Amino acid sequence: MAAKKPQSQSAEDRLIARHFKPIARHPGAFGLVDDAAVLGTPPGHELVLTVDAIVGGEHYFPDDPPDAVARKALRVNLSDLAAKGAQPAGFLLSLALPKSVNENWLKSFARGLSADAKRYGCPLLGGDTVRTKGPVMISVAAFGTLPAGTMVRRTGAKVGDHVVVTGTIGDAALGLKLRLQPATARRWKLATKQRAHLAARYLVPEPRNALAEVIRTHASAAMDVSDGLVGDLTKLCAASGVAAEVEVARVPLSAAARAALSAEPKLIESILTGGDDYEIVATVPPGKLATFRAAAKAAGVPVSALGRVVAGKETRFLRPDGKPMKFARGSFSHF
Amino acid sequence: MAAKKPQSQSAEDRLIARHFKPIARHPGAFGLVDDAAVLGTPPGHELVLTVDAIVGGEHYFPDDPPDAVARKALRVNLSDLAAKGAQPAGFLLSLALPKSVNENWLKSFARGLSADAKRYGCPLLGGDTVRTKGPVMISVAAFGTLPAGTMVRRTGAKVGDHVVVTGTIGDAALGLKLRLQPATARRWKLATKQRAHLAARYLVPEPRNALAEVIRTHASAAMDVSDGLVGDLTKLCAASGVAAEVEVARVPLSAAARAALSAEPKLIESILTGGDDYEIVATVPPGKLATFRAAAKAAGVPVSALGRVVAGKETRFLRPDGKPMKFARGSFSHF
Repeated sequence: MAAKKPQSQSAEDRLIARHFKPIARHPGAFGLVDDAAVLGTPPGHELVLTVDAIVGGEHYFPDDPPDAVARKALRVNLSDLAAKGAQPAGFLLSLALPKSVNENWLKSFARGLSADAKRYGCPLLGGDTVRTKGPVMISVAAFGTLPAGTMVRRTGAKVGDHVVVTGTIGDAALGLKLRLQPATARRWKLATKQRAHLAARYLVPEPRNALAEVIRTHASAAMDVSDGLVGDLTKLCAASGVAAEVEVARVPLSAAARAALSAEPKLIESILTGGDDYEIVATVPPGKLATFRAAAKAAGVPVSALGRVVAGKETRFLRPDGKPMKFARGSFSHF
Repeated sequence: MAAKKPQSQSAEDRLIARHFKPIARHPGAFGLVDDAAVLGTPPGHELVLTVDAIVGGEHYFPDDPPDAVARKALRVNLSDLAAKGAQPAGFLLSLALPKSVNENWLKSFARGLSADAKRYGCPLLGGDTVRTKGPVMISVAAFGTLPAGTMVRRTGAKVGDHVVVTGTIGDAALGLKLRLQPATARRWKLATKQRAHLAARYLVPEPRNALAEVIRTHASAAMDVSDGLVGDLTKLCAASGVAAEVEVARVPLSAAARAALSAEPKLIESILTGGDDYEIVATVPPGKLATFRAAAKAAGVPVSALGRVVAGKETRFLRPDGKPMKFARGSFSHF
């Protein structure tokens, strides 16, 4: 290597300046020139902090479009902020890249990240980029704000509360099955549009940030559904020291999921336990259900009431005959 | 798989409860029961945010003691907070684990993390644990507090300021060389204690958090030295629109580094550009140098003045004969 003058930019600095500096629009990001960012909170407010990582080959397919990968990495965190009742304030990005990742991948990745940072009002505050001999890993730490002391926790569910969930459940789990075995679509008798719907729901979540303020002001407990409705509601109830009884028939399904389920009734287990929904499950006191419904409608987010919080330790999903379902696995886990 | 009731804890939940819950002592961590944490700042203060990741086989050796790996992961971030003048407030941990990582590794890792979280007053606020088919990756997002608007940036260096650095430079780079080629120690004629000093400096950084308040109140610009003094000072000066002239003879060296350098004079290049020092390089206005020195002494942190900030674009490291050194590479980069 020829002797040269010290450079003011390393290869990593140049990568950051090229791809990520344009996304760092928050004044506290200082255009990523510094090695730290600053973030203030309005008086009387505090920060909600969450971190979620995704790994190539574990949480997405290595050949997924890079912009979709970026969106997923950010949105799984936005979903946590929404479920806690917080408004997005910004995020830090930690990116481990193998040498196989090229400029085009990074360009597309940064484009997806930039679009969602703008869409959700959640600017990039800073980051770190490192080399790995393994798969791509993307870790996002996301920050939201809310009035101090008002974060919606998992622990506040009370006996008698309604169990509610946003959107539809099971689409992403079915989308993953289709991705792994495309021939399944024929067995499920899915229309092209239905296939596309399920595939899209797995590829990129649609976090419910529009509902954050409604959750914060109405829910006694909430969390986002990332590891399956059964497992996540069971966790929420356990954290609250209660249980729940849910009517399986009231779990909201998309037209595509209904079609698949009608062709293959045993899919109900995948739908309820498969994960990657990124909807919000919440408990709402009886006196607040009507205003919750109205506020959700005003926010444009569909919500369904599925059952009630009860005393006890066993959260049950009841069939139309009133008998509780048994599940091969309660919740999705990469471990 | 036998049918079973839904569980309220996944394998990941159990891992977290076993190893990381005891470290999450901050009230806003809610004992890691929730999927988010809350963090407030004192009135008139704001948060400094930083993120740094380390990867097995890139930033540490896979057979390094797990407690040392945990300390390194946290301390490289604490070092950033110190250089920005912030007091540690907490951190989020994102951990990608291959199946080869066992309970003993995790136990030791958590022990090291716990000890440093306590030592530096920087509690675990939350985290995420994911599977990877690649090496271990540990990403830490760390948060500090300081009075709003007072973060010490890279951009404030002014012509005439003194260039100062904490501790000693080059130890970690030499420690890494020893680790890669243990026989080198004989060529360098190192005593056992000197070998151990260099090895320890590479294994676990000693971030200068004791100096954070002194940096905040005295420095016009600062950053931590992670990619080599030459490259990092060059970056700081470029960000400030100035240059610096440093006398190489005034760069502080440990007894071990002096011994190695005397046996092999060309090591000066590794010492100045090798990285992993985790000292702080700062610029201090002439009128503040005396009080800076006194305050650093009171904080127990050795500091050295190396040269001055000058006009221009080329930061130079001058030999005793006044001629600028040339470097094969200006700064360490994993890219």
